[in-house]
Amino acid sequence: MTHLFNDPARFTDDMLVGFLDAHARYVVAVPGGVVRTRKTRPGKVAVVIGGGSGHYPAFCGTVGPGFADGAVVGNIFTSPSSEDASSVARACHGDSGVLLITGNYAGDVMNFSLAVDQLRREGIDAHYLVVTDDIASAPEGEEAQRRGIAGDFTVFKCACAAAEAGLDLRNVIRVAADANAATRTLGVAFGGCTLPGADSPLFTVPQGKMGVGLGIHGEPGISEEPLPGAEGLAEALVDGVLGDAPRGGTKRIAVILNGLGRTKYEELFVVWGAVARLLRVRGYEVVEPEVGELVTSLDMAGCSLTVMWLNDELEKYWCAPADTPAYRKGAAMTDDGAVRSAVQYEAAAPARQLSQLSDDAGRLGGQYVAQALDAVAKMLADAEDELGRIDAVAGDGDHGRGMVKGSSAAREAANMAVEAGAGQGSVLIAAGARWAAEAGGTSGVLWGSMLSAIGERLGDIGIPDSATIAAAMRAGYDAVKHLGGAAPGDKTMLDAMLPFVEELQRLVDDGQPWSQAWTAAAGVAGEAAKATADLRPKIGRARPLAERSVGTPDPGATSLAMCARVVADCFVLTPKRDC
Amino acid sequence: MTHLFNDPARFTDDMLVGFLDAHARYVVAVPGGVVRTRKTRPGKVAVVIGGGSGHYPAFCGTVGPGFADGAVVGNIFTSPSSEDASSVARACHGDSGVLLITGNYAGDVMNFSLAVDQLRREGIDAHYLVVTDDIASAPEGEEAQRRGIAGDFTVFKCACAAAEAGLDLRNVIRVAADANAATRTLGVAFGGCTLPGADSPLFTVPQGKMGVGLGIHGEPGISEEPLPGAEGLAEALVDGVLGDAPRGGTKRIAVILNGLGRTKYEELFVVWGAVARLLRVRGYEVVEPEVGELVTSLDMAGCSLTVMWLNDELEKYWCAPADTPAYRKGAAMTDDGAVRSAVQYEAAAPARQLSQLSDDAGRLGGQYVAQALDAVAKMLADAEDELGRIDAVAGDGDHGRGMVKGSSAAREAANMAVEAGAGQGSVLIAAGARWAAEAGGTSGVLWGSMLSAIGERLGDIGIPDSATIAAAMRAGYDAVKHLGGAAPGDKTMLDAMLPFVEELQRLVDDGQPWSQAWTAAAGVAGEAAKATADLRPKIGRARPLAERSVGTPDPGATSLAMCARVVADCFVLTPKRDC
Repeated sequence: MTHLFNDPARFTDDMLVGFLDAHARYVVAVPGGVVRTRKTRPGKVAVVIGGGSGHYPAFCGTVGPGFADGAVVGNIFTSPSSEDASSVARACHGDSGVLLITGNYAGDVMNFSLAVDQLRREGIDAHYLVVTDDIASAPEGEEAQRRGIAGDFTVFKCACAAAEAGLDLRNVIRVAADANAATRTLGVAFGGCTLPGADSPLFTVPQGKMGVGLGIHGEPGISEEPLPGAEGLAEALVDGVLGDAPRGGTKRIAVILNGLGRTKYEELFVVWGAVARLLRVRGYEVVEPEVGELVTSLDMAGCSLTVMWLNDELEKYWCAPADTPAYRKGAAMTDDGAVRSAVQYEAAAPARQLSQLSDDAGRLGGQYVAQALDAVAKMLADAEDELGRIDAVAGDGDHGRGMVKGSSAAREAANMAVEAGAGQGSVLIAAGARWAAEAGGTSGVLWGSMLSAIGERLGDIGIPDSATIAAAMRAGYDAVKHLGGAAPGDKTMLDAMLPFVEELQRLVDDGQPWSQAWTAAAGVAGEAAKATADLRPKIGRARPLAERSVGTPDPGATSLAMCARVVADCFVLTPKRDC
Repeated sequence: MTHLFNDPARFTDDMLVGFLDAHARYVVAVPGGVVRTRKTRPGKVAVVIGGGSGHYPAFCGTVGPGFADGAVVGNIFTSPSSEDASSVARACHGDSGVLLITGNYAGDVMNFSLAVDQLRREGIDAHYLVVTDDIASAPEGEEAQRRGIAGDFTVFKCACAAAEAGLDLRNVIRVAADANAATRTLGVAFGGCTLPGADSPLFTVPQGKMGVGLGIHGEPGISEEPLPGAEGLAEALVDGVLGDAPRGGTKRIAVILNGLGRTKYEELFVVWGAVARLLRVRGYEVVEPEVGELVTSLDMAGCSLTVMWLNDELEKYWCAPADTPAYRKGAAMTDDGAVRSAVQYEAAAPARQLSQLSDDAGRLGGQYVAQALDAVAKMLADAEDELGRIDAVAGDGDHGRGMVKGSSAAREAANMAVEAGAGQGSVLIAAGARWAAEAGGTSGVLWGSMLSAIGERLGDIGIPDSATIAAAMRAGYDAVKHLGGAAPGDKTMLDAMLPFVEELQRLVDDGQPWSQAWTAAAGVAGEAAKATADLRPKIGRARPLAERSVGTPDPGATSLAMCARVVADCFVLTPKRDC
């Protein structure tokens, strides 16, 4: 969805005003498009790129030293006119000719061809070349019919770098043609883009499907297939592109994994990890890959894989520096520190040694603790979605995920500690450390410190009596309160935990055994967690969002109470041994 | 929607594998995150940034010379653990202390504070600072409670540049604190992001609304307001941020217009044009603005405006060079050409002179032509959506838009030519030139050449007879066929135009007056346009998409036939004078 515009009919004009303002260091406007702020130097071929808008950084975002001399700017997904193209070329032309390059689209071909005719009539040595990298758009043997998509970038880059290096027009054309002949792209889409002012996208892809062979103008793909995982997609893209390798291609390749707009960097990196591995397995050496947004299609969801098979000349131009509004290559500054050896960072911090002082009773207690953590982890795995839903009301919905990660890691650490002969205290401390380390986030660090504090208080020797257990729970509460900086009533886990530890203490003081008291205290905690729906959070959350959370219980208090109940069930409803 | 992942629980790990591979020149992995490939040089303070993932380029994308020494990488929207934070800081630390900075979130605050405690126990001079730029999250007077959002970037940038410049830890801390105190951000959202593996977004915003005061972790905004146009949004953001200006702020400001993921560059530039103008009107000088994606929230739709009020020191660090995976500042290469004077590009090409040779009859003909073009433009404005819909079946849906732009411009040019006393030929030539120039695209250049060819054939003298009119239409057809390179049967506008000119010629040859023949020919063209639904396009469109278009008539043929019909109505159904 394109949300931000004034008059949709003036979208491109408005866009250019902002672009020119933000990048005044690089570009100035001329009729029909933009050119570098400095004139083309004598002896240098000018390279003009262009096409419709909606593909930023393509095309105007790559005008600058090392890259294009000018860009012809059409309306969204619409070829600029021949008047636009000749105007920009005329402004860029120095004394050594001009090469115009676009993707292979009927409108661009007609308008840029007419512009070249006009420029030649004016005595300018002008030439036109089209990029044809999209392997999905026509079969082998008909490469000249193919569309230009993200491979525009590799061809533009090499042609512009060759011009910057001082090659004459015939040779710049040769490099551009070589780059085009060596470049192949295959793209997929998961959802279409919406033109400014339109209220629906140009196409949709059913959930769980992907369109294969998409264009970059909102054209749907050529076939619809089930959406694979990132690994599967990487394989499909690599297979597709390598399956169309040009004859005589070497094993050194420039590669672009290009996002189309809505498919974000994190997703592209996930796919890239698999693409890079597959390419290496097949014997390719990847030279200075680009993973990001280079040729977009407004907010289209999707990505494409481009490979340019390199020779020495293309590699030189692919790697050459550039300084443009949206694409900068080469170091503007360097680091003079010593090169790191990665090995020295294998171990981050010394792990805490498990206590060697446990006795048989303590080791039995350690087993009970591990069993209780196992029950907690199982319960939280089931409750993940529900906890996430509560958290999403005024937060980011990750509470369930964090609790699952933390409790699973804690269970594993507890089991390892039991194996190593640890008592209940050390088992809890080990579990707390892993909970905090693996879950991260707010709940992770708080649960980690809580379990560690409980473990410290219980120790590894003997069976703790009910008073010790009640005191240990209070120690856990104190640790959470100290670390989190919240107070009861702030709508945090403390609001379930304080009633729990107070009720546990009261009943134990009254002479109840801890396991019986625990069940009652867990019930109190559950009621208290529900009651947090009436509260407003006071810390750690934006003030106005606090209002939104009224009516929903605190996720941290909720999960705390749920854990207390599971542990109660564990110790009361089943024989201790099997819990 | 996040589409690309393997196991959602391992999303961040998979993302890091790809990130590290793609950017091996800049970063290496350490437990808990990433650090520069070179060790921190003696005497340099290390600056470690971090937080949850999902914000790329923040945070790992800005590790490198001139920027961060390391980034702690948590799971999506989840604070990394204290172990992660201390591990990365330990790896970055040289001999001069380490500053850790995050946005102000409870989880980050706890984990990074614990990490600092741990580092100090190890003898490392560590310090922690939080960014609090989000003005929507707490009122004035409670700035310390505010969240950190895109202002993370300005604070990180200045602190890192200060460390790179060799300031000691106390002074790096001071610069970071100054930058934070001088930075304000306000954000809006139009749609929420979706966590990997989830099947619905964290929140939704009703169409036509925006959430004001959003967070960057998928938290919904603090209030919902009608979505304004780009100008209105610019005003709301500027008013909001300037209304919270820090005391003593100067008129020189660093500004970021930050996209959250799905709000694309073109939209940001449209908003930026208005933001820059408003800031200037209010007397501000904008220093090296950033318009793009610096702190994202997966594929969230929305943007935010950040202002940092500068003093000399902050300006120096804001403008300092940097070379990182996702953010590079400063020129890696320069342009040695002469600076351009924009003035010389005011006129692109000499305009064609209108014929001075029209007579009264020709001028009357010019008026008829202008009236016919007016009727065409009105009809196309009504038909825009329908033509776009047909075009979207296998194309990019812009045919209606292009025809409207072209015909409106042609109408205007025709009226101006009539005012200037042009005959029918010159009116058509002027209209054709403007149609091509303003519409661009495929249809623009074809219609432009068609009208010009018709005009050349009609001339400006006398009332053309029926034979001349039929011949002129054939000349228009020939121009389109020559320029487009298509043949009848290729599913283009030729498939409606050829039957039209042939029927017109036949009836005129039979002795019918042209206006009567035209009506009949327009009917034939309409039938022929419908019949293009059975055809496959042969040029100018990707081969596989051709299959998709079977069953839908060609948009170019359709609009051509519609125009022929309107012109017929114009000359037959109403008296000539009023048409």
